[in-house]
Order: sequence, then structure tokens, then C-alpha cells
Amino acid sequence: MLEKHIKKAYNESTEGKRKGDKKTESEKIREYILSAKKITVPNWDGKKLESINRTLKKFGLPKAKGLKINTNAADLTRMPTITKALMAVDTTDSDLIIARGRLGVPGSGSMLVIMDHKGRILSAAISPPHIIHGKSLQEAVEEELKTALQRLGL
Amino acid sequence: MLEKHIKKAYNESTEGKRKGDKKTESEKIREYILSAKKITVPNWDGKKLESINRTLKKFGLPKAKGLKINTNAADLTRMPTITKALMAVDTTDSDLIIARGRLGVPGSGSMLVIMDHKGRILSAAISPPHIIHGKSLQEAVEEELKTALQRLGL
Amino acid sequence: MLEKHIKKAYNESTEGKRKGDKKTESEKIREYILSAKKITVPNWDGKKLESINRTLKKFGLPKAKGLKINTNAADLTRMPTITKALMAVDTTDSDLIIARGRLGVPGSGSMLVIMDHKGRILSAAISPPHIIHGKSLQEAVEEELKTALQRLGL
Amino acid sequence: MLEKHIKKAYNESTEGKRKGDKKTESEKIREYILSAKKITVPNWDGKKLESINRTLKKFGLPKAKGLKINTNAADLTRMPTITKALMAVDTTDSDLIIARGRLGVPGSGSMLVIMDHKGRILSAAISPPHIIHGKSLQEAVEEELKTALQRLGL
Repeated sequence: MLEKHIKKAYNESTEGKRKGDKKTESEKIREYILSAKKITVPNWDGKKLESINRTLKKFGLPKAKGLKINTNAADLTRMPTITKALMAVDTTDSDLIIARGRLGVPGSGSMLVIMDHKGRILSAAISPPHIIHGKSLQEAVEEELKTALQRLGL
Repeated sequence: MLEKHIKKAYNESTEGKRKGDKKTESEKIREYILSAKKITVPNWDGKKLESINRTLKKFGLPKAKGLKINTNAADLTRMPTITKALMAVDTTDSDLIIARGRLGVPGSGSMLVIMDHKGRILSAAISPPHIIHGKSLQEAVEEELKTALQRLGL
Repeated sequence: MLEKHIKKAYNESTEGKRKGDKKTESEKIREYILSAKKITVPNWDGKKLESINRTLKKFGLPKAKGLKINTNAADLTRMPTITKALMAVDTTDSDLIIARGRLGVPGSGSMLVIMDHKGRILSAAISPPHIIHGKSLQEAVEEELKTALQRLGL
Repeated sequence: MLEKHIKKAYNESTEGKRKGDKKTESEKIREYILSAKKITVPNWDGKKLESINRTLKKFGLPKAKGLKINTNAADLTRMPTITKALMAVDTTDSDLIIARGRLGVPGSGSMLVIMDHKGRILSAAISPPHIIHGKSLQEAVEEELKTALQRLGL
């Protein structure tokens, strides 16, 4: 579904004619997200999954399922959240993944990413380190997910 | 400089004892950024580099230099901004890289990333697609850089 | 198809019980490759595509199609061949990708990779820099593809 | 040291003038490897480290040190060996990293990679899954390291 639009954009970049994101491209991403049937959240405990599902419901999206996998392992990589999301891509047949974790090096704060079934990045949101913003984890997660969806026009 | 802290954090994750970012970790990142002598911005035209430098000055940081390299090529990858930043890591001896570009797939909006000399991610900020937020490019870039620095407590 | 096996292996690693690749895992990869219907080779000119197709035929695999995309861009990244293969994953609906290009930094020689439709790495082969081995490009490509398939037991 | 050569090669690719690896590029990689003072092997037990060191000695290279870190975590990522090598880049100040592990998905066999202090890939070698080649682990590792060094002309 996104393949055709990505190819076109790649060709524009090659020809030096690319001038930033296009309306139709963001629209296609929204369509992809809104048509998701199976959403997975790697390694989420009950409470956090509830926060995510509460937010998804507000946007008319189906409930996400948790994934039992050792996402701690992702914390030993350069981009823990991206690694965590890819774990879900590679071990499930979900069409949408929502992962949340550390942005980069220890101390760099957190990131939430929305990924498609092939591992392509559709949207994301970033928060300061918890020790700096002081919000509750649930509050932070809800806000990040809301931001990640709204910034695409959802 | 960051190696010791990263190793400690990795070991905590392995032992299941990790409880999020620590004050000293964010502090070490701040120290690294503040002690930067050579800052590079891959492929920035005069005006944008000025916006970046205006913001860097407010935070007491030295002027960044632009890097002439074909950063359009990064737009044909999964994470254009990360790819762009790594181009600067691999072709210069800078100790700090500030790159700005597309977050993920075409239509996904933009990202600004702050990277160290080895390609480790220190901070970042994300904006909606230009067609949605409607800000000028310069304004968006200044805001992103400010956000990326302030979220670490700078 | 591979999801279930990957998940199982991930769990074994987590529990410290993993003892290397299993027969059934390599078998599943072989099955995936042999059942491929649409094979894509990013940016291959006529002659090279012919070499690839000659080799694929010997293994009972369908003809691959070339993909017109600016794969030169991949040469400005850390792992050019992997980047090139991901370009095909992201812009087509192929179930198998065969990409060939540079392994790492300039001067590091070449790599051929076999990737599935999600960007997972199934097999690969590596050759010395051309200036060292002295083989013709076609000969090198045929040999690499043969090696990449045979090492899995095909 | 490699920065200047990488930049030049990137510019050639951009201008469409690149014709494969150059003698001087492979030479610069060899020089980098031969001048390494601190070599690290992430997570190697005594015996395997000995095999590596035996091979390094034959090439006139200094002894490598093992790194105690949970490299099992790398097995939950898309490119376990690359992830493992980056763990050593990010947690030590070594100038050369030699990592060995799984190539891609479970069942895909093994890879040995030689990485510089910034995470750039200098050389690599790939072996079939152990269950297919049947060699001892030590024998396989020694052969891979030898291949990875010799293919650059060392």
C-alpha cells in the first residue's frame, strides 16, 4: 500500500526535485494506521497496555495486544525503542506496532514509535528523561501516543 | 567518556535491575555536549546554519560548521535523519553532529538528532509534517534544537 | 511463516538455553526461499540480472526482476548492500530480495544478501575487493549467489 | 584517518563516477588494522579468545581482550553480530573490534565482523550454519578471522 508512494518519493529525491512531505503521503500513512486490524505492543504490562488502549479507542482504533518477549535486551542496543519495535515485526504478523522505550544512550529519555508490518517508521514522539519531566509513566505514554497520532493529522 | 556509564546501564538491564534513566547519566550527556569543540551540521545551507548557530549560541555552544555532502541520498533510507547524521560521523572528526531531516517514510514529518562522535544518539526532537504544522523551516529547526537541548536539562 | 521460529529462538536466548542454529530453522529458511514467487534485484543492469537468473534457474527458483531505483544512494551509508536491499523491501511487494554491493566502508569489498519481504536477513556471501580477487563482476556475482544458497543446504 | 577517504568515495558515488573499491582505500583499511593498539572481542570465553589471539599473532597484531557483557541480548536483533560489535564500540575505547555471532534470522549461520572505533565495518567473513558445515567452533572462528584479514590483502 505504501510501496508506490515511497518509490515515487525516492525518485524525486534522486532527481533533486523533492520539496518535503506531501499531503497525499501523510494521508496514506493515516489510512494505513486507520485500517490496522492487528496492533501489537511489545512487552507491555497490564496497566500500560490499558493506557495505550484507552488512547487508541479515542482515535477509533482497535485494541492492541501485548507481546511477551524479553524487551530488556533492546536496552543493550543503540536505539532501544526501534529495536523493540522490530522484535514485534519479526515475531508476529501484526500490521501495526507501537513500541515505547529509551531513545538512545542511557540518560537520553524516551521515544514512542509507530511502525508498520515491514518495520517502516510511520510516526513517533519523544519525551524528556523521566527524572527531568517528572510525569507518571502512564501519563507520559498516553501523551506520547496522542502526539504521535495527532502530528499526522489524526 | 560515556563508555563507562553505558556499560553500567547495560549490565543493569541484563540483571533486570534497570529502572529508567539516571540523573548522572543525563548529566554526563550534558557535559559531553557542553564540552564539544567541533560541531558539524550535515548539508546545511547558509540560512539554516545561521538559525542553528543562533540557538547554539544561546546555550553557550560553539558555532557549527556545515558539511558539503549529498544528504539527499539519506532520503532513500528508512531513517533519513539518522543516516544523514552518520554521514557526518563517518566523514569528519567532529565531536558533535546535529542533523535534521525526515523521520521515517515519506509523509512522516521531521526529526532533529544530536549525535556524538561515534554515532551514539544523545538527544532528538520530532516535528509534524510541514504541510500540517505550517511553520517556516527556520522556525521549526530552531524550536526542534531548543527542545532537543532543553529536554536534557540544558 | 518465520515468525513462530524466530520467537522461539528469541525466548531460548533469553533463557540462556540457545545452542546455535537448529536444523528446522535452516529448513524453514530454505522453504521460504523455495516458495518465493516474486524475486527482486535492486538496480541490476541486463547482464548482471542474467547471471543472477542463470543461477536462480539452477536452484529451481523463478526469474528475478530488476528494480529501477537510484541504488548509488546506498553507497553513502554504513552498509550499502543492506541499504540497497531495504530499498527493494520498501518500494515493492516482492517476497525475496537479492542485493549486491559494498560490504562496509569504501575499500571493504562486496557482499550479496538474501532478504525476505520484511527485511530479515536469510543468507549472505562476501567477496574480497575486486582489485584483490581480480574476477569478472559476473563471475563474482554468480559465485556469491551460489555460495549464499548452498550454505543453507540448498 | 579513514574520514577523508570515505568522503571522497561518497562524493564520487554522488557524481556517478564511482567504479568500485580502490587500491588506496583497501590499503588505508589495512593500515588502520595494523596500527590497532587495543583490540576487543565482545563476550569471548577463554578458549575462543585463544583461537582469535593465535590468529592475530600470525598477522602481527596485538592480543585482543575479552569483554564481559551480555551478548545474548544481541541475538534478539536483526543482525546479531553487528549488534554485538556495536556493544563493544559503545562501552569501550578500543580501536578495533572483532565480533562473531549469528548473521541474521535464527538458522542463517554465522558472521565474523571487524569494526573500527566508530562502528564502521572494515571486513567480515560468513560461515554456513554449524549444523551444515560440521566444523568445531574454534576451527570455524580461526578460519573466519583469517578470511576476513586475507581478503583485504593482509
